[in-house]
Amino acid sequence: MTPTDPEPEDAGPPTRRRPGGRTARIRRQVLDAVLTELGEHGYDGLTTDTVAARAGVHRTTVYRRWGDVGGLLADVLDAASDDDWQPPDTGSLEADLTALNEEIQSALTAQPPIVTALIAASFRSEKAAHAQQRLWEDRYARCEIVVDRAVRRGELPPHTDARRLLVAATAPLYHHLVLLRTPLDPQLPRQAARTAALAAGAGAFAEPPSASDT
Amino acid sequence: MTPTDPEPEDAGPPTRRRPGGRTARIRRQVLDAVLTELGEHGYDGLTTDTVAARAGVHRTTVYRRWGDVGGLLADVLDAASDDDWQPPDTGSLEADLTALNEEIQSALTAQPPIVTALIAASFRSEKAAHAQQRLWEDRYARCEIVVDRAVRRGELPPHTDARRLLVAATAPLYHHLVLLRTPLDPQLPRQAARTAALAAGAGAFAEPPSASDT
Repeated sequence: MTPTDPEPEDAGPPTRRRPGGRTARIRRQVLDAVLTELGEHGYDGLTTDTVAARAGVHRTTVYRRWGDVGGLLADVLDAASDDDWQPPDTGSLEADLTALNEEIQSALTAQPPIVTALIAASFRSEKAAHAQQRLWEDRYARCEIVVDRAVRRGELPPHTDARRLLVAATAPLYHHLVLLRTPLDPQLPRQAARTAALAAGAGAFAEPPSASDT
Repeated sequence: MTPTDPEPEDAGPPTRRRPGGRTARIRRQVLDAVLTELGEHGYDGLTTDTVAARAGVHRTTVYRRWGDVGGLLADVLDAASDDDWQPPDTGSLEADLTALNEEIQSALTAQPPIVTALIAASFRSEKAAHAQQRLWEDRYARCEIVVDRAVRRGELPPHTDARRLLVAATAPLYHHLVLLRTPLDPQLPRQAARTAALAAGAGAFAEPPSASDT
């Protein structure tokens, strides 16, 4: 599904291949067009034709490489992992989680609402749903270092389940802003971070040591 | 929007009104048909015509009372609050929250997936979104007694913010099952409940006393 094969374009005669050049540029144009269309018109306004027109590429290029709207959305989500994003490193668990939650809150309340539109689209397309899952998996995996650092600083016991702690810290943001649709609460990032940090300190995410550690 | 006006039906001559009788019965038939159609075909298969056909009522009845699919979904969600549901009362905060989370997990993983289909539909229709918000508000408000009871038993400090505690306890269920779409984890209801209870015990949801209490 992902457009990794550098086929020659349909516009014009075959040219010498520059791996990553033309293919990467067209991918960027098309994915930018998807985001713009999604921000302006939402999922219902998104078609391969409108994306091709906005990107300035031939519609058959979009069709051949991405197949349909689900394929376009999946590639937008997959492309989002292709960055060097790292979680905040402030020196304390609670402050790291607060800063992370502030990033999440900003993303979920940005205008145009690209991130929430992508989440909404994941209920419409299996391909987008799987890509959204992969993106969250990537982000949570990258965030585990926040917990590792807190363990190394002695803030948390060893054998703390990083993923459970991270989900506890961040889930209230998604719950309020995506599902409950409550008004923006500037205290929420800090409160949810503090809740998770207090629970962690009280042993909520402690795992029994695995056999290999004994 | 809600079908409260007991207009005479369009089928047959006007009859003597039996308040709540025929109107309530037709509402029940129509809302049951919405749930069945939604479970079988999802939002995209839902039209006022298919609902009318399945309910065995005239299409203009559905159109006049509910307007469109969004109106039908909103009334399904509003009708869901019209029950005597109460949260579990087991004698301890953690066990109450665990039992509540088990109810949520069951609802979110049931087949056919009515609850998740309604949540997904709330991204398609403003009317459904507002009704989903009202339903959650109703449910969280009813659950506050779980926290009140824990305060009265001395498990929690007075001035505990019940809503924040309840959202912390339940948000990981929605996050995993609706957004992250992780495989069912039978430990999750208990773990999320225990996390919130431990955080509460550590003062995560403590509010300063209000002026009226001093």
